[in-house]
Amino acid sequence: MTQLHNREIHLTSRPDGMPVPENFALVETTLTPEDSDIVVQNLYMSVDPAMRPALSNGQTPLGKAMTGGAIGKVIRSASADYPVGAYVIHRCGFREYHVSDGSDLSLITPEDEAITTHLHILGGTGLTAYGGLLVIGELKDKENVFVSAAAGAVGSVACQIAKIHDCRVAGSCGSDEKVTYLKDELGIDYAFNYKSTSIARELHIGLPDGIDVYFENVGGAHLDAACGQMRPLGRIPVCGMISAYNNKGARSEGVTTLANMIYNRVTMRGFVVYEFNHLRSQFLSDMRQWMREGRMKYQETVMEGIENAPAALIGLLHGENTGKMLVRLAEGSAAV
Amino acid sequence: MTQLHNREIHLTSRPDGMPVPENFALVETTLTPEDSDIVVQNLYMSVDPAMRPALSNGQTPLGKAMTGGAIGKVIRSASADYPVGAYVIHRCGFREYHVSDGSDLSLITPEDEAITTHLHILGGTGLTAYGGLLVIGELKDKENVFVSAAAGAVGSVACQIAKIHDCRVAGSCGSDEKVTYLKDELGIDYAFNYKSTSIARELHIGLPDGIDVYFENVGGAHLDAACGQMRPLGRIPVCGMISAYNNKGARSEGVTTLANMIYNRVTMRGFVVYEFNHLRSQFLSDMRQWMREGRMKYQETVMEGIENAPAALIGLLHGENTGKMLVRLAEGSAAV
Repeated sequence: MTQLHNREIHLTSRPDGMPVPENFALVETTLTPEDSDIVVQNLYMSVDPAMRPALSNGQTPLGKAMTGGAIGKVIRSASADYPVGAYVIHRCGFREYHVSDGSDLSLITPEDEAITTHLHILGGTGLTAYGGLLVIGELKDKENVFVSAAAGAVGSVACQIAKIHDCRVAGSCGSDEKVTYLKDELGIDYAFNYKSTSIARELHIGLPDGIDVYFENVGGAHLDAACGQMRPLGRIPVCGMISAYNNKGARSEGVTTLANMIYNRVTMRGFVVYEFNHLRSQFLSDMRQWMREGRMKYQETVMEGIENAPAALIGLLHGENTGKMLVRLAEGSAAV
Repeated sequence: MTQLHNREIHLTSRPDGMPVPENFALVETTLTPEDSDIVVQNLYMSVDPAMRPALSNGQTPLGKAMTGGAIGKVIRSASADYPVGAYVIHRCGFREYHVSDGSDLSLITPEDEAITTHLHILGGTGLTAYGGLLVIGELKDKENVFVSAAAGAVGSVACQIAKIHDCRVAGSCGSDEKVTYLKDELGIDYAFNYKSTSIARELHIGLPDGIDVYFENVGGAHLDAACGQMRPLGRIPVCGMISAYNNKGARSEGVTTLANMIYNRVTMRGFVVYEFNHLRSQFLSDMRQWMREGRMKYQETVMEGIENAPAALIGLLHGENTGKMLVRLAEGSAAV
């Protein structure tokens, strides 16, 4: 193998508001790996809400392959650590092939789960929900929990962890189909479509005693409604604010109810997943057990082909996914 | 002594927005203490921003004497714990005399300080700043600190504690005179009159490296500006949100910058002073030492007579005080 035909996605202009297909380009390249390189064929890549702010600030350069979580298979290697056929996870998605010296790869050793789960429920997405709820949110059994974007990749894990802790769980989402999914598939206590109702009123109905933990994924009107209903010593782990990400400076709708934090001694804390790296083995052990017991489910929305990666990201920001939004990059490499 | 002529302040109607004198009444009563009662002549009483929300919700009943911190002198007592002549602090201000069974009194034993300091710098006001900054704010030496309502009773203590910890301190206030006071008397690094400038721009100038701790007294536009400039792992102890207290449901102006809490892993926490009761002796020891060293100053704005207690509270909400707003209730009982 001396040359490799590769396709990758570049950001070509910074979106003003919601990204559009014209902000991206599919670029064909020819890769010429060195003998010492490890060549990874990417099988699946992830799109995440957190990618949106990075499109507007300098984090995502223009005219280069974008980055994001991906799982691939080693197809050429002189490394004993990453032999041919091994599955690896890395941050160089948005391209069909990744040429690496090994320093940015991590081996995946699936047990009886589909390999794609390592891009969501068993990966950073799941760990975000696990650490956000249990560490930052200091969740206790039987508390009252509200999760926004509850049918999303992080939210759906947070809902199920809260149910495993015997909590009363209410979730918001953006369609009636997702309401059905949350209630019937994930078994949460109360779910509503925030687009067709008053969030504050729904929370009064769904969690009439108030909220102990609000797992915050949306910001703006959601936080405005939830913060006003926090109970004494309530916690608001702030995972994301997707409602703000398309706005200049990631400004959300105004939140007016923060004075309730004083009287009720509420804590709100922003966090990022790398805070929980030390918990990863406990997390994997807990999650695999819950999956075996049927208490931790997931759903994937999978788009096909690198050319659809921008559409997957845009669709995610429009809320078109239930559960994890993925892009399958290699034909015939179905999850093992 | 069988009867005692007393004057007290009642709330007669709930304010809609800023309280007005017509919401209050001066009521004359005749007290007939039992032989076992302790009779306290109130000398000074305190008005606090936190009283405002209590006027709107059920906490302050209509047609009864209002409550609030006060210092008095025991003028009749059969109690060895509270002998005649003793100074006591209690929550039954807004009246000239307080008749007690002793259960709601605490003795004050001043050292070389004015007794009024126990209503502010050495009392709950000072402890609020001390615990809010050191415990909730987890202040470290040499950090960048922003204090809103910096010339107020709590804010001015917070500013000085931060200076004692070698921090760079910026403060906001509502008049040019207070700016001068903050810079020249309290020695903070940067001060501005928020009414005549852009808070966000002033913070960029005053704390160009960003904010490690924002001691929050105001809410709304102040929080909107400060939250956007929080540094990684910044803390926002939420002491009060005076800008919101006159609004229905204590709703503030909208805060739009909360997404910065995610990227910078910021913690915001509401608190109330009773969380710090266990620190009271350390607090008194520290504060008295700092006062002796000339590093902890205070200013009082004193109005005269029970009939002016409503005006003192209204004036406080208009920001007419520098430092602690007090009402002197007894002629000739000057601070010892």
